[in-house]
Amino acid sequence: MQCESSQELKGLIDEAKIYTKDGQVAQYIPALRDADPDKLAVAVYYPDGSCYAAGDVRHKMSLQSISKVITLALALIDRGEDVVFDHVGKEPTGDPFNSIIKLETISPSKPLNPMINAGALAVTHMLIGNTVEERFERLLNFVRELAGNSTITYNEEIAKSEFETAELNRAFCYYLKQHNVINEDVEELIDLYTKQCAIEVNSVDLARIGCVFAMNGIDPVTDKQVIPASVVRICKTFMVTCGMYNASGEFAIDVGIPAKSGVSGGVMGAVPHKCGIGIYGASLDDKGNSVAGLKLLEMMSRKYDLSMF
Amino acid sequence: MQCESSQELKGLIDEAKIYTKDGQVAQYIPALRDADPDKLAVAVYYPDGSCYAAGDVRHKMSLQSISKVITLALALIDRGEDVVFDHVGKEPTGDPFNSIIKLETISPSKPLNPMINAGALAVTHMLIGNTVEERFERLLNFVRELAGNSTITYNEEIAKSEFETAELNRAFCYYLKQHNVINEDVEELIDLYTKQCAIEVNSVDLARIGCVFAMNGIDPVTDKQVIPASVVRICKTFMVTCGMYNASGEFAIDVGIPAKSGVSGGVMGAVPHKCGIGIYGASLDDKGNSVAGLKLLEMMSRKYDLSMF
Amino acid sequence: MQCESSQELKGLIDEAKIYTKDGQVAQYIPALRDADPDKLAVAVYYPDGSCYAAGDVRHKMSLQSISKVITLALALIDRGEDVVFDHVGKEPTGDPFNSIIKLETISPSKPLNPMINAGALAVTHMLIGNTVEERFERLLNFVRELAGNSTITYNEEIAKSEFETAELNRAFCYYLKQHNVINEDVEELIDLYTKQCAIEVNSVDLARIGCVFAMNGIDPVTDKQVIPASVVRICKTFMVTCGMYNASGEFAIDVGIPAKSGVSGGVMGAVPHKCGIGIYGASLDDKGNSVAGLKLLEMMSRKYDLSMF
Amino acid sequence: MQCESSQELKGLIDEAKIYTKDGQVAQYIPALRDADPDKLAVAVYYPDGSCYAAGDVRHKMSLQSISKVITLALALIDRGEDVVFDHVGKEPTGDPFNSIIKLETISPSKPLNPMINAGALAVTHMLIGNTVEERFERLLNFVRELAGNSTITYNEEIAKSEFETAELNRAFCYYLKQHNVINEDVEELIDLYTKQCAIEVNSVDLARIGCVFAMNGIDPVTDKQVIPASVVRICKTFMVTCGMYNASGEFAIDVGIPAKSGVSGGVMGAVPHKCGIGIYGASLDDKGNSVAGLKLLEMMSRKYDLSMF
Repeated sequence: MQCESSQELKGLIDEAKIYTKDGQVAQYIPALRDADPDKLAVAVYYPDGSCYAAGDVRHKMSLQSISKVITLALALIDRGEDVVFDHVGKEPTGDPFNSIIKLETISPSKPLNPMINAGALAVTHMLIGNTVEERFERLLNFVRELAGNSTITYNEEIAKSEFETAELNRAFCYYLKQHNVINEDVEELIDLYTKQCAIEVNSVDLARIGCVFAMNGIDPVTDKQVIPASVVRICKTFMVTCGMYNASGEFAIDVGIPAKSGVSGGVMGAVPHKCGIGIYGASLDDKGNSVAGLKLLEMMSRKYDLSMF
Repeated sequence: MQCESSQELKGLIDEAKIYTKDGQVAQYIPALRDADPDKLAVAVYYPDGSCYAAGDVRHKMSLQSISKVITLALALIDRGEDVVFDHVGKEPTGDPFNSIIKLETISPSKPLNPMINAGALAVTHMLIGNTVEERFERLLNFVRELAGNSTITYNEEIAKSEFETAELNRAFCYYLKQHNVINEDVEELIDLYTKQCAIEVNSVDLARIGCVFAMNGIDPVTDKQVIPASVVRICKTFMVTCGMYNASGEFAIDVGIPAKSGVSGGVMGAVPHKCGIGIYGASLDDKGNSVAGLKLLEMMSRKYDLSMF
Repeated sequence: MQCESSQELKGLIDEAKIYTKDGQVAQYIPALRDADPDKLAVAVYYPDGSCYAAGDVRHKMSLQSISKVITLALALIDRGEDVVFDHVGKEPTGDPFNSIIKLETISPSKPLNPMINAGALAVTHMLIGNTVEERFERLLNFVRELAGNSTITYNEEIAKSEFETAELNRAFCYYLKQHNVINEDVEELIDLYTKQCAIEVNSVDLARIGCVFAMNGIDPVTDKQVIPASVVRICKTFMVTCGMYNASGEFAIDVGIPAKSGVSGGVMGAVPHKCGIGIYGASLDDKGNSVAGLKLLEMMSRKYDLSMF
Repeated sequence: MQCESSQELKGLIDEAKIYTKDGQVAQYIPALRDADPDKLAVAVYYPDGSCYAAGDVRHKMSLQSISKVITLALALIDRGEDVVFDHVGKEPTGDPFNSIIKLETISPSKPLNPMINAGALAVTHMLIGNTVEERFERLLNFVRELAGNSTITYNEEIAKSEFETAELNRAFCYYLKQHNVINEDVEELIDLYTKQCAIEVNSVDLARIGCVFAMNGIDPVTDKQVIPASVVRICKTFMVTCGMYNASGEFAIDVGIPAKSGVSGGVMGAVPHKCGIGIYGASLDDKGNSVAGLKLLEMMSRKYDLSMF
């Protein structure tokens, strides 16, 4: 997983970096609050295994909401499409990711899609395993395989902080339990979910995972089909329709790349048949997306004609 | 606490009883599910200590939502008006009692009023005491004092069943915790709340408690001011604007008596300066109110001109 | 309709007047925008025909939302309770008066109550008459009769301004038309509604109308039953549960008088069996109620023990 | 615009046709209500000008909501991206197309996207021209150019019926007017909008228009750039995120073709770089999409690997 420095990407980063001042880093837990808002890094991973980068691409970030796509893939592998979509819907929403309204006003009482928190919790609930540890181990190994990086683990401090402040997610869980969408112990599910969000990767890891999605599930190095193509297709669709919280529609127009962001400032992009992109930039816009990261993706999409549309 | 049989009330009961078939008993826990839908009982308690009754007025029921008025009174005594209404609003709502929408769309994030579940949980949270046991003991003694009945206790089986099925209330609690409306352990609050709901009274108890509210807080037997008049005034106002779930507006027009209902089929009425009314009729309409109980109150209101309006 | 100056009321006005600076006059049409925010006037009308006043009680104001109670009374006389409540609900709401959400999320698709704009439009729709002119003439004569003032008319300039800016009310009308709540020409209904809102009265007029409601429909001078008692009861109930927009619950607790406000700064109160109150104070709080007017009512309620609760 | 019969497409149609019985034709106006629910037709138009078809591809249908994409293209040409998206948002929504909730709860008060009715009305409002006639003429000529069919016109009877029943759209317009999103006469806008919806095309016309979108705006016969590529990109994005009402997310996963449906039973698809697809099948599912048409597209997507994802 060597990654070559690219002057071209460096130039784009310098240009995009000025937008970091338009946002701020996530404030709700110390580990995120302390991030350097001025950092910006990008890695591009190609199907032939080559990789180009600029900025501090070895800087680690927690997956946060980016994990929603990966757990969705694993849950689809574990349970199949029918079971998964019995528990969560397929429709995008104009509401913020943490909105509780839609749980009540659209029937049946299932979360609208797997990218909003309530839906992601329902997906994590479906991961197979006898214990939280076993289920998490399976997920972690899946992430390691996709990233081709067996050293990936999770940040215990972040997991702990998030567990302690996850009141809204607990509210979602009990609401889902009331409506029989989930039936496990809530504290266990929150434990699993916060660990999942705290898995730490760097931009190169993200780019390589994105590359697997870009290549319909085929590993760029081993050429093995590590995710079934039908599962990848579903994941990429959600990345387009709901990957950027309630800025997904705007992102689809302006950038047009299947991508998923997280409040740690990470963005994982999957340009179909072309490449995977991993970005780190902790300064967030008011929707929760990396403000300079999105600008960078927009520049790259225009310069290299990456939009699907 | 002798209560004389009244032929006149017996006649009204026989007339109202035919409406029991228009509803059904609450289904969500065994203890309520097994209630006899055809029973109907009423007691009327006067400021001079006299009491008239018809039907099986010694039949016990759990307080359920009727407890919301009594805990509000105690919380107002414990904390004062300012603190209480920092945590919960004063506005009625056309939404059902278990709606979560209003928590999100009206700012600030506090429950609209103390009669919806989220608001009632916020009120119970404010009851003073070092432990759940101590807080519950204080509440139970308050109920006993109001009813003049030291034998009142709670039904452990009902409390246990409700505790085990309280997922929606747990969702509310975590939502409230997220927004800093409450800050105690959720399981402890749910424990206290479900015990509160499981306190068992009979129709005479309810009528006597209603009489205290009707007399602005003065005990009909001891003439002692057991609740400050200003607290009673607030409670009675909520009984008028939100006492019958999302049928409160209709009830105010058709009946016009400050009253509070519970899903056990109980209704407690407080006719200002006149009397307290206690009703038991387990068959509920689709809003959760005793179907024959409301009919009976409507008949009594017309016959005896009891409407405030 | 002589009204005696009262030093006591003058004292209360002076005290309440300081709150006028906490609000501002309605801004959406010139006639309201130009009102003097510092004026405050009150009249109290008693069942024996006596009247006491302070401030410029001859200052004219348009009825605005106060007209909602009067048209409700006339519609109930014209059509009967059943027809009226086929078109509009009886439940209070925590939403603002101009909210459109509840039209969609509560079924059946009828406005929640006659005090929100959509409900008031449905009520005005039911006024009997062959033409807008005839229906308005009937309403105007009804107002004149209640106020004992045959010189009352409407302010053409205000009606015209409101007609020209009534886009939101037109939206409500078409929504109601879509759901078969109304079936007349929308422009005609808006014409009738904006004229109704533009009827001009002074504080003494309001106090006298309030007195009719306070006396269950009996005219304080002629002793004639000018509104059936059953109709008055319904109107007073709505004044309590929804008379002060989404501050009704708070007003019920703090003041406890059936009352209705308008954005012109008028408030009409009806203290059961005691008196009618008319207030003018154009400075509004953020809910749309006369800020000093409500303070004045709160003072009067405490001083003279006027609360129903 | 000759279109060759295709046995292969005929086979697919026969297979998809059995699903027509799972839906029903639109009921709200006579012209739609009288459609034959069993008809199913498809045309596929290729960039080289070739065309293959099955079923009665000359059967005319009104554009209905399919017109929303075409007017969006023309408005973007007329006004530019900045002006258009000052009036309408870019976000998909899980609400039905005729929902009014989102107009109120998401601020600023602009419709979420151009594919819901409120957004489409805001877009039509932006079409340039001095009169309704001139604006409609421009739009009609645009449709004719895209379809390469100068005989296209609108169905006056349908336009008239829709104009007469457009109360909900009038409600949207006045709501938009209240919030300064539109400022023209509502009846004129409704006139223009209902004519736009009543433009009649057949499946071959739809396929050819779809082909222009598929080819980034280049006419398959003249090779002329009839829509700027940047405009086409925006339109196709909305077709993916919001083209199938509140089944768009599901359609993106199951089919993955930018497409737009209408309640007449038409569907226009644009397979990037490959072909345009036109379908007619009047039997609708409960979301308002051609039930057999969607099945047919799903079959075609799988058989010919047409999904973008």
